[in-house]
Amino acid sequence: MASNLGFEIRLLPLARVKYTAEPEGAATVDIPEFGLQAEIIGPAEQMPQVSRLIRELAVEMGQQENESLSLTREIVDRYEQLAILFEMSERLGRAEDPGARAGAVLETALESVGASGGCLLLSGPGRLLYFLKTETEEERSQLLALAEKAGHLGRASVEERSHIAMPLTVSNRGTIGGLALGPKERGSYRSGDLKLLATLAAYAALFFDSDRLYQDLEALFFGTVRSMVEAIDAKDPRTRGHSERVRKHSLMIAQELGIEGRAAKRLELAALLHDVGKIGLPDSILNNRGDLSPQQWELVRQHPQMGLAIMSPVANIDDILPAIGEHHERYDGQGYPSGKAGEDINLFARIISVADAFDAMTMERTYRPTFTKEQALREVRENSGSQFDPGMAGIFCQKLTAKS
Amino acid sequence: MASNLGFEIRLLPLARVKYTAEPEGAATVDIPEFGLQAEIIGPAEQMPQVSRLIRELAVEMGQQENESLSLTREIVDRYEQLAILFEMSERLGRAEDPGARAGAVLETALESVGASGGCLLLSGPGRLLYFLKTETEEERSQLLALAEKAGHLGRASVEERSHIAMPLTVSNRGTIGGLALGPKERGSYRSGDLKLLATLAAYAALFFDSDRLYQDLEALFFGTVRSMVEAIDAKDPRTRGHSERVRKHSLMIAQELGIEGRAAKRLELAALLHDVGKIGLPDSILNNRGDLSPQQWELVRQHPQMGLAIMSPVANIDDILPAIGEHHERYDGQGYPSGKAGEDINLFARIISVADAFDAMTMERTYRPTFTKEQALREVRENSGSQFDPGMAGIFCQKLTAKS
Repeated sequence: MASNLGFEIRLLPLARVKYTAEPEGAATVDIPEFGLQAEIIGPAEQMPQVSRLIRELAVEMGQQENESLSLTREIVDRYEQLAILFEMSERLGRAEDPGARAGAVLETALESVGASGGCLLLSGPGRLLYFLKTETEEERSQLLALAEKAGHLGRASVEERSHIAMPLTVSNRGTIGGLALGPKERGSYRSGDLKLLATLAAYAALFFDSDRLYQDLEALFFGTVRSMVEAIDAKDPRTRGHSERVRKHSLMIAQELGIEGRAAKRLELAALLHDVGKIGLPDSILNNRGDLSPQQWELVRQHPQMGLAIMSPVANIDDILPAIGEHHERYDGQGYPSGKAGEDINLFARIISVADAFDAMTMERTYRPTFTKEQALREVRENSGSQFDPGMAGIFCQKLTAKS
Repeated sequence: MASNLGFEIRLLPLARVKYTAEPEGAATVDIPEFGLQAEIIGPAEQMPQVSRLIRELAVEMGQQENESLSLTREIVDRYEQLAILFEMSERLGRAEDPGARAGAVLETALESVGASGGCLLLSGPGRLLYFLKTETEEERSQLLALAEKAGHLGRASVEERSHIAMPLTVSNRGTIGGLALGPKERGSYRSGDLKLLATLAAYAALFFDSDRLYQDLEALFFGTVRSMVEAIDAKDPRTRGHSERVRKHSLMIAQELGIEGRAAKRLELAALLHDVGKIGLPDSILNNRGDLSPQQWELVRQHPQMGLAIMSPVANIDDILPAIGEHHERYDGQGYPSGKAGEDINLFARIISVADAFDAMTMERTYRPTFTKEQALREVRENSGSQFDPGMAGIFCQKLTAKS
C-alpha cells in the first residue's frame, strides 16, 4: 500500500512492534485487531509521522475498539514518543543558532501531536519569538498570549481542549519562556500529549538556557576585548575607534562573501585583535607628530609579530593568529613580515588588510596627507591586485560606494 | 504494602495507568492479571525505580503471563521511559559542570535499565571519564574498553547480552564519546532498553557538545584577556606577571571562602581586569624610576575610575565592575576613590585588595624598599582590619604561610 509520504508499507502476518532509529529507518506496527502488521521502510526522520499515519489507518479500518487494540495503540504511541524525542535531538544537533533551535523544537512539537500551528517564546533579554504554520494575525496573537501565560504562570494549560500551552522551565533557574500549540488536526488533546510535550519542553528549555549562557559569555568576551582594544587605540587620539571600524568594515566584506554565524564571529574577533601588538609600542611612537626615525619605523613594522607573540599562548585561537600576523602582507608579495602573496595570505588577513588600510588613509596623519573617503576608495581601487586581494577590494569599494 | 524505597503502595480496584510528574509524584500501575492496581505516592525522582519495582512485584506474584498482561507491562515501560527522560532533564538542569552532568546522565542510564554499574567517557580535548557503581578495577577497565569501542565505531553494541555500549553522537559533529553499562540486575538487555538508551545518549551528547563549546569559548576569553593584560603589565618590567599573580592569589582566598564554579570564574576575571585602567597611563609614569610628582600620583590614583570607564560599556559585566572600581578602598574607609568602608566594599574587591597589595610589596619599587615574602606577609597581618578585611587577610596569610 502506498502512502502520500513516499513510504512503502507492507501488510504482514502479526508480529511484535519494532522500531529502528537508523538513518534509513524501518518500523513495524501491529494492528492485531485484523491480524495484520504494517512494515514501514523510509527516512527515519519522518518515522513519527508515518507511525501516526499507520495508527490512523488502523482506526479508520475498524472502529470496533477492544481492550487489546487500544492497548496496542497505546504502545505504538509510546514508541512514537521515544522516536519523536530522538528525532528532536537530531534536529537540535543540526541547528546552529537559537532561531534554528526554536524552529527544530516547534516543528517537533507540532508533528508529535499533529497540531495545526504553534508559537515558541523565549522571554527576558535576547527575547526570541518563533511562529510555525500560523496563518492569521489573530491566530498568532492568541498563541503568543498562551505562551506568555504559560511562561508567566510556570505551568501547562489546555484551553477548551483545543489549544495547549507549556512553560519552558529549567530546574533551579525558573521559567524562561513558553510554547503554545493550536488545535490538533484530529481529536482533542489527551493526557499523553501533555506528558510528551512536557518532556520535549524540558529539553528545549535546557538547550535555550545553555544557548543563553553561551551568548552572555560571548557578549562579555567581545565587549571586554572591544573595550580594551579601544582603550589602546585611544592612547593615540588619531587612532581612536580604529579597531572597531576595521571590525565593522571587515564584517561588511565577509557578509558579501557568505561568511556568517560562528565564522563571522571569528573574523570579528580577528579584526578587533589585528593591532593587539601595538600594546607594546612606546608612547613616543604612538604620539609622534613628526617623522618617525628608521628605528621607530622598524618597531612599528614589528607589530604583527608582537601581536602573534602576545596571542599565541591563548587556547582555541589558532584560526585567528594568521589574521593578526599577516594583515600587513600584500597580494603582490611585497608586504611584511613574511612576503607571502596571493591566496597564500590568510583569508581573514586579506579582508582585514583592506578595511585596515582604508581606515588608516582616512585618519589624520602627520607624515602623509589625510584622505577623504572618496580619495581613499580611489586608492583602494588603484591598489587592487597589488596591495589588496582584488576580490576583497572590489566588494569593499562597491559596498562603501553604494552606502553614500 | 510497604516497599524498601520509602514509598506507600496501595492495591486498588483496576483502573487506568496514571503518572504525574509533580515534585511529590503519584503513579498508578495496573496489574490486570489480578484485577489489581498499585497506587504509588512519593518523590517524583524515584518514580522510575518504583514503577520498575511494581512491575517486578507483578511478575513475582504470578508467572502466568498472558498477552494482556505483557501488553500492559509494555505500556508501563513506555510511560517509564518518558518519566526517565523527563527526570534526566531535571537532573541535567541542576548539574552545574560537565562532571555533574556526566553523573546525572550515568545515574539515569543505570536506573532506566536497572544496570549494575556504568562508565561514561568524553574523548578528545577536555577528556572526561566517569564511573558509577563499579567496584573492581577489572570491571572499570572492561566498561571503559566498551565505551571506547562504541565511541570509536560510532554505534551501539550488546556484548553477550550482559553489557551494553552506546556512542555519544551529535549530528554533523560526529561521535564525542561513549557510554557503557554492566549487566542488568534482572534479565538481559532487550531492544526496548537499546532504544531508550539511544535517546538518552543522544541528549547527553548534545549537552556535552554544548558544554564543550562553552568551555572552549571561556578558555579563549580568559586566555585573550590574560595575554592582553600581561602585555600591558609587561610595559613596566617591574609589574610583569602582576595581574596573573593577583588572579592566582585571589582564587586561593576565594576557594577557602567556598566560592567555586561560575562565581570563582567571575572573581578570576575581576582579578585579571583589576588594573585595566592602567592602559591609559603614559609610559612616563609606568617607567618612572624616581619619585612620581603629585600630579603623576593623582593620575595613578585614578586608575580604578579609568578601569570603570573602560569596562562599563561591556555587557554582562556588572558583577565585575565594583571589583575594578573598589580594589583600592580600605577596610577602615581611608582608601580611594570613594572612601567606602567594611563590608560596604565589594567582596571581590576586598579579596583582590589583599592579593594586589601583597604583590605590589614584593615587587621591585624605586620609591620604597622591596619586601621579602615574610616581610610582606607581616605587613598584611599588621594592616588587617585597617587596610584589609581581616577575614581575607587572615586566610591569605594562613594559606601562604602553609605553602612555604
